Amino acid sequence: MLRARGSGRRPVMLAIAGDSAAGKTTLTRGLVQCLGADRMTAVCVDDYHRYDRGERAGRPFTALHPDCNHIDIMEQHLQLLSLGEPILKPVYDHATGELVRPELVEPRDFVIVEGLLPLHTRLARACFDITVYLDPPEPLRHGWKVQRDCQKRGYTPEQVMAELERREPESAAYIRPQRRWADIVVRFAPVAARHDPPDTPLSAELLLRPTIDHPELGPVIDEAAPGGGETAMHLRLHRDTDGRPVDALHVHGYVSPEESQVVKKAIWERLGPRAGAGAGDLDHEALGRFGEGDVSDPLAITQLLLLYHLLDADHRQAA
Amino acid sequence: MLRARGSGRRPVMLAIAGDSAAGKTTLTRGLVQCLGADRMTAVCVDDYHRYDRGERAGRPFTALHPDCNHIDIMEQHLQLLSLGEPILKPVYDHATGELVRPELVEPRDFVIVEGLLPLHTRLARACFDITVYLDPPEPLRHGWKVQRDCQKRGYTPEQVMAELERREPESAAYIRPQRRWADIVVRFAPVAARHDPPDTPLSAELLLRPTIDHPELGPVIDEAAPGGGETAMHLRLHRDTDGRPVDALHVHGYVSPEESQVVKKAIWERLGPRAGAGAGDLDHEALGRFGEGDVSDPLAITQLLLLYHLLDADHRQAA
Repeated sequence: MLRARGSGRRPVMLAIAGDSAAGKTTLTRGLVQCLGADRMTAVCVDDYHRYDRGERAGRPFTALHPDCNHIDIMEQHLQLLSLGEPILKPVYDHATGELVRPELVEPRDFVIVEGLLPLHTRLARACFDITVYLDPPEPLRHGWKVQRDCQKRGYTPEQVMAELERREPESAAYIRPQRRWADIVVRFAPVAARHDPPDTPLSAELLLRPTIDHPELGPVIDEAAPGGGETAMHLRLHRDTDGRPVDALHVHGYVSPEESQVVKKAIWERLGPRAGAGAGDLDHEALGRFGEGDVSDPLAITQLLLLYHLLDADHRQAA
Repeated sequence: MLRARGSGRRPVMLAIAGDSAAGKTTLTRGLVQCLGADRMTAVCVDDYHRYDRGERAGRPFTALHPDCNHIDIMEQHLQLLSLGEPILKPVYDHATGELVRPELVEPRDFVIVEGLLPLHTRLARACFDITVYLDPPEPLRHGWKVQRDCQKRGYTPEQVMAELERREPESAAYIRPQRRWADIVVRFAPVAARHDPPDTPLSAELLLRPTIDHPELGPVIDEAAPGGGETAMHLRLHRDTDGRPVDALHVHGYVSPEESQVVKKAIWERLGPRAGAGAGDLDHEALGRFGEGDVSDPLAITQLLLLYHLLDADHRQAA
């Protein structure tokens, strides 16, 4: 048994799982900036590779395969972080494909763990207070991956598409099944059967599973659009692809700034008592940002909801 | 709390602490070869450097200083190993002075942890079943360090002597105080006031503290030298430098092969029931070896005593 350090208070642990280029880093970045890097630690668990790029070349599986990763060490490190313990985390250099000097990670009040396989095993899942799965439509994700890997990692589009094809069986076998374990499934996508102007941000569909207590959003939405009917934001009872009931919150990309403002303000107000003395320190300007200075209200509202859950879990632990 | 894996049986943990070039690797190597690498894991804890060589250059302390090492991570890893859990151990490359890709270490039935600071903290000490401190006379150790660092690490004798001088305050402050926490203090040294031939191996003086149960060595020694009087091997009640009572076992370098053989055989026989079915697998030819093919009976008897303790601890755990 490992002793707990410091105040003995456990950090709040949030998992953001999803396939390569699903938007994990974008979602995470806004949360860290809003809460402040002094209160939040972000950890990417894609560094637990068992083999470097050269060693992988001769093996029959891709980096997505659990056997290609030190899953047991990832589990161990997640447990340690959830106990408030520091870890010496392995580091994989994406530029060179090499495993390099590990880095010390000390958990702050909040820990976001994002990556390909954070929800793969039962023991790993047990470490989290809140679990999120990012589930964009595959063609959209493929486009994002081509863009990023060509711009930042020096690949050609053909190389990226070939890699996506090679990875598909392992995505299906190991990555997508994690959707099942998420308290919140987040899908950013254009709204079908509409003809929004080309600059319209993607809409967000959030499946809110009853595995954690969500804030009461009904009144918030009514307040924003008192007329009812087809609004830019709505909450509907929904049957998930696996048949289980969920609440589905839709935030359309064409939401008006006024309507979005009302919802954001209402969630902020519900955050207030939970944020406690630190509420004034939250930087809400950091929310909704993506790409090179773009802003999306659906993204901002998604992050705000996650922020609500982080502060709520912290509040309940302190009580 | 971390779950225990596999059989749920904890490995037996042996610490071998001592200053640079005190003989830790030589002592460890014979034990691993005798028990077999399939049953024993050897870990060097001098890889938990917080800074690489370049970073250390600008700092006011040497690699011996606890602040220069991730002591908390070392403690954590010792705890994990003692629970039978694998670790991803940092690796320091002595040739380049760089911190490199970490390595997976999975504890087998026996784990030897050797290094500069394994007994520095209370929590680290609590992880061990048996603790050893290597305590050669300083001039002898300096000679060994010059020889090794010049041969294997490319330094000049002047550089090594300057480094020893620079390290001396931290040796005194952090390394030597660990002697206090050892169940067995081992000193290899020439016997004073004798004129043995120049090829005589070093004698061993083993302080056996009553913190663990040592085998009854009196009868063994009487058997080897029934005449009594000044023999090449004796056990005496002794007052340690700190005033505490200890048994001191002396094994002189000029011990005759016959006498040594009787003692080794007697300890082997006591090992028998503890080694269980594995006794036949012990390779006693591996004991006592040092340098380039040299053999020392005092070293072999020291290793045999440690082997007794390893098997005894394992035996008691299984019971």
